Amino acid sequence: MSVTAAKGFTAAGIAAGIKENGGPDLALVVNNGPRRAAAGVFTSNRVKAAPVLWSEQVLKGGAVTAVVLNSGGANACTGPKGFQDTHATAEKAAEVLSAQGADGEGADGHSAGEIAVASTGLIGLPLPMDKLLPGIEKAATELSAHGGEKAAIAIKTTDTVHKTAVVQGDGWTVGGMAKGAGMLAPGLATMLVVLTTDADIEAPALDTALRAATRTTFDRVDSDGCMSTNDTVLLLASGASGVAPGDDEFAEAVRTVCADLARQLIGDAEGASKDIRIEVINAATEDDAVEVGRSIARNNLLKCAIHGEDPNWGRVLSAIGTTGAVFEPDRLNVAINDVWVCRNGSVGEDRDLVDMRYREVRITADLAAGTDSAVIWANDLTAEYVHENSAYSS
Amino acid sequence: MSVTAAKGFTAAGIAAGIKENGGPDLALVVNNGPRRAAAGVFTSNRVKAAPVLWSEQVLKGGAVTAVVLNSGGANACTGPKGFQDTHATAEKAAEVLSAQGADGEGADGHSAGEIAVASTGLIGLPLPMDKLLPGIEKAATELSAHGGEKAAIAIKTTDTVHKTAVVQGDGWTVGGMAKGAGMLAPGLATMLVVLTTDADIEAPALDTALRAATRTTFDRVDSDGCMSTNDTVLLLASGASGVAPGDDEFAEAVRTVCADLARQLIGDAEGASKDIRIEVINAATEDDAVEVGRSIARNNLLKCAIHGEDPNWGRVLSAIGTTGAVFEPDRLNVAINDVWVCRNGSVGEDRDLVDMRYREVRITADLAAGTDSAVIWANDLTAEYVHENSAYSS
Repeated sequence: MSVTAAKGFTAAGIAAGIKENGGPDLALVVNNGPRRAAAGVFTSNRVKAAPVLWSEQVLKGGAVTAVVLNSGGANACTGPKGFQDTHATAEKAAEVLSAQGADGEGADGHSAGEIAVASTGLIGLPLPMDKLLPGIEKAATELSAHGGEKAAIAIKTTDTVHKTAVVQGDGWTVGGMAKGAGMLAPGLATMLVVLTTDADIEAPALDTALRAATRTTFDRVDSDGCMSTNDTVLLLASGASGVAPGDDEFAEAVRTVCADLARQLIGDAEGASKDIRIEVINAATEDDAVEVGRSIARNNLLKCAIHGEDPNWGRVLSAIGTTGAVFEPDRLNVAINDVWVCRNGSVGEDRDLVDMRYREVRITADLAAGTDSAVIWANDLTAEYVHENSAYSS
Repeated sequence: MSVTAAKGFTAAGIAAGIKENGGPDLALVVNNGPRRAAAGVFTSNRVKAAPVLWSEQVLKGGAVTAVVLNSGGANACTGPKGFQDTHATAEKAAEVLSAQGADGEGADGHSAGEIAVASTGLIGLPLPMDKLLPGIEKAATELSAHGGEKAAIAIKTTDTVHKTAVVQGDGWTVGGMAKGAGMLAPGLATMLVVLTTDADIEAPALDTALRAATRTTFDRVDSDGCMSTNDTVLLLASGASGVAPGDDEFAEAVRTVCADLARQLIGDAEGASKDIRIEVINAATEDDAVEVGRSIARNNLLKCAIHGEDPNWGRVLSAIGTTGAVFEPDRLNVAINDVWVCRNGSVGEDRDLVDMRYREVRITADLAAGTDSAVIWANDLTAEYVHENSAYSS
């Protein structure tokens, strides 16, 4: 299903030879219209990869006819040549798709300025353009209304599974694919997401729905506190269903797909053995709740304790104490898997009551300072994480 | 040497039975005068352990006659009872030392209000006061002008070696001991430091020298980004040398001892295999340099790469990109062990030229934005770190 669940889209995923192991490494997603509306959200890292700089410009126009995605190389920190390579990628896709005449060639023909590009892989290496450009030609010949799964597979890097999600509306659909083991901002490795819909929606409404969705989903996934140079989330609308859903209904569908994919990303994070759901409640503001949640999510000592199935609430309090959020230390309460092991900043229920055998661990931090809340997802810190990220360049 | 290198001090380190393994766990440091001036710097964590709350009040008076330090329990997040326990510890020490009449009893006798207390160990457990209080009596009987080493040994937790340093001035001395594998703020596990001097210095001048020293030493050690609830650095002056050094000379001596101890802490960080010296140069401001240095120091992906002896400069750029410092991405330069592997935000010298076999790794980040600089020390991230911090509560 993936990006071809919605009507009006074709996709392909092939092995272009970018990855040394010969695996699938190039995906192409084409919006066959009638509408070509699009919105995008990108990494907030100030060191941005060439494809991010390119696609940000493309998205300003609010129209995307196709997306070229590659794994096997991030094309980040590659200087002017890297940007030229991204430009050449878009030009090649426009040329191939226009020649193919897959959809209304001519006045409506493909222009490089409406081709988004996304890359993932090692930073600082130039892309093998002698493999990537022929790969685009090959991918174009394999475009299919059933190509969504293959596209999702071709963007994998250290992902152990490909990630897709679909929500059905009343006569319309939102679907999507994701790669990565992390988050939009910040992000572990790179997160690339392409969402498609056949709902009849214009670019400004897409942008509103996408930003609202990412703010409470991908933005609140914090696997290892690191932010990629390449994170990209795109939402493309074909209008092929002919149905224009209400704003709230559509926004909720986009949010549901994003939340589903975000949860899959955490579940497949590099080397992780636990998925940690951190809910901060009774905060003075939502910003406070997010700040506290992130501080807990990034505490390496706590992440190690969770890995060891040790309900070490002292490390939670220690992490809360580094924030500027409104709270009184002696009013803080912390539950781990619903056992309130810390009450009023001190020892609460018996920590031996906490059962941490399962992959999902729930931490609830009660700031006792208001009524706002937020949920942040994180992973534990494991020897496997260290191994995956030290044994080879990535 | 340690805290008894300077004249006017006695110290002891004993096994009080606080640690389950029966190892040394209680240290006592006594200032026999004639002066009892003191300054202190404490964790900036808002969740502060009882001994920190107590000692902060003591230090406001600018006079400390003795310090009681224990390992085997942090007395943090222990509620009102924890504060009462710290108070009782200080009272007991005052009582024992006054009774002992070790030094000018009477008008000058020991008061609990001039006894500092520092604790380190697991958060959230009450201290075994039935062992700690008799331990103070025992320690008082073992006080010696040669007790500095034993005191340094008694404050160890996961430290593999005890840490001491001494600088000789012209007729005066600054010495000290440290435990921990981290930093003042933030801190891995807890850092406890006691410095002593026989220089004839008043409390305000001690405070100035100590704050200046910690700002560029302990404050710039960032082993794992975690900040303890218990970090404490104390500087006690006995005036026993009768020499009053110049402000600059004294400040430099204190800074040298702090830098020596800070370097030892990084060298003994839990599970680390590399010590990483991160120098940020040509920053617009010193604050920018520190912000960038900390961001690099805390990047788990980079810390893993360093562990794997992989000169992954892309992860350095990615970390710089998350800061608000003044820089242009395409003007950034990065050297690893003096090889400029990244120039102008892109590929520089051959990364194969970087020799990373040795424990110390030097990263230089050139922001090309000004003339300020800063050095931050960090450690790599290893499977051993994960093991030490997940296999048991600490």
